[in-house]
Amino acid sequence: MTIEDWQVKAQKGKDLLHNSVPKQWLVPTEQLPSVTQKNVTDFPRQSGLLTEREIIITESSATELVKGMGKGGLTAEEVVVAFLKRSVLGHQLLNFATEFLAEEAIARAKELDEYYKKTGKLIGPLHGVPISVKEHVGFKNKTCHTGYVAWVDRVVNEDAHLLQLLHKAGAVFHVRTNQPQALMHLCSENNITGKTHNPYNRTLTPGGSSGGEGAALGFRCSPLGIGTDIGGSIRGPAAFCGGYGFKPTSMRNPMVGIHVAALGQESIHGVVGPMGPASIEDLELFQKAVLEQEPWENETSLVPLPWKTITPNRDITVAIMWDDGVVRPHPPVTRGLQLAKEKLVAAGIKVIDWEPYKHEKAWGIISTLYYPDAAGLQRQMLRKSGEPALPLSEWAFSYGPPNPLTHHETWDLQFKRDVYRDEYNALLKSRGVDFIISPNYPGVAAVMGESHYWNYTAIWNLLDFPAVTFPSGLKVDLNLDAVTEEYKSYVPRNAADEKEWRRYEGPERYENAPIALQVAGRHFKDEETLAASKILEEIIRDGKKGPAI
Amino acid sequence: MTIEDWQVKAQKGKDLLHNSVPKQWLVPTEQLPSVTQKNVTDFPRQSGLLTEREIIITESSATELVKGMGKGGLTAEEVVVAFLKRSVLGHQLLNFATEFLAEEAIARAKELDEYYKKTGKLIGPLHGVPISVKEHVGFKNKTCHTGYVAWVDRVVNEDAHLLQLLHKAGAVFHVRTNQPQALMHLCSENNITGKTHNPYNRTLTPGGSSGGEGAALGFRCSPLGIGTDIGGSIRGPAAFCGGYGFKPTSMRNPMVGIHVAALGQESIHGVVGPMGPASIEDLELFQKAVLEQEPWENETSLVPLPWKTITPNRDITVAIMWDDGVVRPHPPVTRGLQLAKEKLVAAGIKVIDWEPYKHEKAWGIISTLYYPDAAGLQRQMLRKSGEPALPLSEWAFSYGPPNPLTHHETWDLQFKRDVYRDEYNALLKSRGVDFIISPNYPGVAAVMGESHYWNYTAIWNLLDFPAVTFPSGLKVDLNLDAVTEEYKSYVPRNAADEKEWRRYEGPERYENAPIALQVAGRHFKDEETLAASKILEEIIRDGKKGPAI
Repeated sequence: MTIEDWQVKAQKGKDLLHNSVPKQWLVPTEQLPSVTQKNVTDFPRQSGLLTEREIIITESSATELVKGMGKGGLTAEEVVVAFLKRSVLGHQLLNFATEFLAEEAIARAKELDEYYKKTGKLIGPLHGVPISVKEHVGFKNKTCHTGYVAWVDRVVNEDAHLLQLLHKAGAVFHVRTNQPQALMHLCSENNITGKTHNPYNRTLTPGGSSGGEGAALGFRCSPLGIGTDIGGSIRGPAAFCGGYGFKPTSMRNPMVGIHVAALGQESIHGVVGPMGPASIEDLELFQKAVLEQEPWENETSLVPLPWKTITPNRDITVAIMWDDGVVRPHPPVTRGLQLAKEKLVAAGIKVIDWEPYKHEKAWGIISTLYYPDAAGLQRQMLRKSGEPALPLSEWAFSYGPPNPLTHHETWDLQFKRDVYRDEYNALLKSRGVDFIISPNYPGVAAVMGESHYWNYTAIWNLLDFPAVTFPSGLKVDLNLDAVTEEYKSYVPRNAADEKEWRRYEGPERYENAPIALQVAGRHFKDEETLAASKILEEIIRDGKKGPAI
Repeated sequence: MTIEDWQVKAQKGKDLLHNSVPKQWLVPTEQLPSVTQKNVTDFPRQSGLLTEREIIITESSATELVKGMGKGGLTAEEVVVAFLKRSVLGHQLLNFATEFLAEEAIARAKELDEYYKKTGKLIGPLHGVPISVKEHVGFKNKTCHTGYVAWVDRVVNEDAHLLQLLHKAGAVFHVRTNQPQALMHLCSENNITGKTHNPYNRTLTPGGSSGGEGAALGFRCSPLGIGTDIGGSIRGPAAFCGGYGFKPTSMRNPMVGIHVAALGQESIHGVVGPMGPASIEDLELFQKAVLEQEPWENETSLVPLPWKTITPNRDITVAIMWDDGVVRPHPPVTRGLQLAKEKLVAAGIKVIDWEPYKHEKAWGIISTLYYPDAAGLQRQMLRKSGEPALPLSEWAFSYGPPNPLTHHETWDLQFKRDVYRDEYNALLKSRGVDFIISPNYPGVAAVMGESHYWNYTAIWNLLDFPAVTFPSGLKVDLNLDAVTEEYKSYVPRNAADEKEWRRYEGPERYENAPIALQVAGRHFKDEETLAASKILEEIIRDGKKGPAI
């Protein structure tokens, strides 16, 4: 086998990762579960490789950790060490990291402990909270390859604005996480550090493009993480891995220093937001810590909207979108929505059914606007190194038009996007609906390589609605989710529908996968959407938080 | 002479205008001033064609008119009739209108008077205020040609969102106003209704593209008007015609239903804002009336920032930009800035000199982003009817690149735009500057056809800073503004500089033109910028408002 130039280059990224793994916590291969073991979420507890205290720490929410450190019962150092140990284990099982930051993280934690010892105070609202960071969020003087072999040598000269703010709030960055080639798979494979697996079932993808974060939260390698989302890249992984994710309205969270090939592309704004294993409260903690620092004072693309504290309110109308009219969800996803409806109705929440509004047309707009240049820039990035396009990259590129659009065609689509946004908004208002509960994806998670239909999440990107993903508390059940005669006799509406329908051969294919829900609210109603999601989750899950499966 | 097809088509626009003029107020040509009379601002008063009461009404501010109607001392009907009469006169002298709306306006005014009679209350904050409207702001069931012959038949099916809100606030729309071909001259000539003149000196342009509004405010044909601005189109005409104009930060005032060829172009956002002859208070009245109706509730591209009431504050630092480092201003413009500095310093305001930051580079970014398609769309619009491109259209088109940019090149410029915005913002903060006073244009106004250099206004569009134009109270003075030896011996920095320098052969060329100032504030500091401008104007003009020349 000849080694290609791009492989030599890609090896640098592998080496960077390999050299960064804190060796003292590596577990000999023979102590790891067999590669055929699908669900590895119990391994930290069962293996005895973490102490009981480390288990407790790593299974706490960020909010609880901060509280613990505020009372002096926990140190930032032991917290980050526990998460680092669990991250090394998780990485061995799931290949979710691109770089460990162990030394810096421990040094930072010690600094925070010093500060606390001296002042008796926490340095900020995220004091000592380990945060994992998707790789393309740039760290000063560190490589930032964004999943492209061509950029495996690129070092950035400033911390991303978001990282600066989180640092000031007391965060500790301990590990950087994997993403797919070109950042546009709902899966996480690239030609540098390879493929990331889903901790609940390693034959499944953790989702993407923030799939390293998905795996990290599913395995509890960090209490909070940073994902980015232009079509579902926060919510897909959060859903597939049983956790929480928040895609804010664009122009709220700071984007400077997050590196993508198409910097300056703004037909569809990518956003950055929090992900985590534990609670919606933690997502709010993150948002508040960032926005109370008024990032718009320095990053002028942001809107100067302070983060509001919302008193949760049960007097809301929620609509359930059972099906987007394009691709029918799989049985367990529908079961998750049924649970939601039953519980909410029983709790006296006003629930109606949501008739989707032209989602196929919406997909036509957003999928074309991802690549008005026919993905020319992305292909150029691949050509630069000679790395091959992965199948899911080709799939994403194929969303775009065969040839670059003219500027006029692009403007026309942007105009249609805005008209669609106003129409959808008017529909919510005329139907009296505050929030829409929907699937995150046709299935509970995709089998590796099969994540093709994104529009259960991308619809809210096109609309620029804030959206929250959280676990329903259910998982795939071999009995309850068996294929029925009704399901078998379904006549698909189109090729995408047929593909997803056929994939659900039975619950076995998705064994143990968590069932997630998604709540979307109107443009700029970020605080309201998080507050409502907290209430809805509480009702749907009888007050339980966290993955709970 | 052969009549071309496009001329036949253009005639429809002329006919529309001609047929809409309320004939009862037309003045026989022989009673009008000679065509060689440059300054016609005194004509309404001197001619005796308006009653004393009509003169008082038409020389009142919108705020005063509303107050008068609120006390019952004025009727909306007599107000609109007075402005209609003055508008007909103004139109005969300046050719500023594209369509009169006399019947609808009078009917609407009667409705408001009825309402007041019945309830004793005003219907809203703009009760009975006649508002003139730039033609491309669409009226339901009316033609909207946007200065293109090709669109002279185009009828729109809904009132612009802004008009709906102003209507609810009580406004009366009485006349639609002229704009240049392709909307991109700092002048107002098109192939449909021709060229608009400056009431202070009819050899000068009223500016553009909201030049019909400029002439209207200079002649006091309306107490408030609606202009749009993507490079100076509100501020140029306000400055050239001795009035007031406000360009808000983008995404605050509603844009739906304002018709341009490049709908969906958003590299540089066009904005809509108020213009008027009387006061900054009137600009605030307009803004508050619009934003207190929460337009973002229906137009989701807007940012949900309620209009704040700001307590004016003298504890501000103001910087004066004497020269943008690219094109040197003419002597009277510099004299206006000198007056500002003297008065402000004497009043104890902290004033520093502003060293401009890379304005030439900024012009490179914005001028390319106006036409990333090499003005292909605009040229196509001209080809559709066969109308010739006017010289200033060709001039504007020549800003763009010779060939369409790729998407990647456009994104790259958008990225550079954002970096430049953040750098400029950081500079203001590091220099401790709250507001920048600058010229609006190298000269006080352009001689017809000579409006070539826009970057004293466009710089704030690129930065998306709110900016207010107001009169300094001075006008061109044949003695004070004489050409000096120093001026003659100036060595221009570049071709644009040389062109503008040579144009100032002496004050006679710009006789009687008002000298204006421009105040820009930071992104989204719209309320602060208006409040500060009010204080600054008060100091600079010793409390006088209005054109005062």
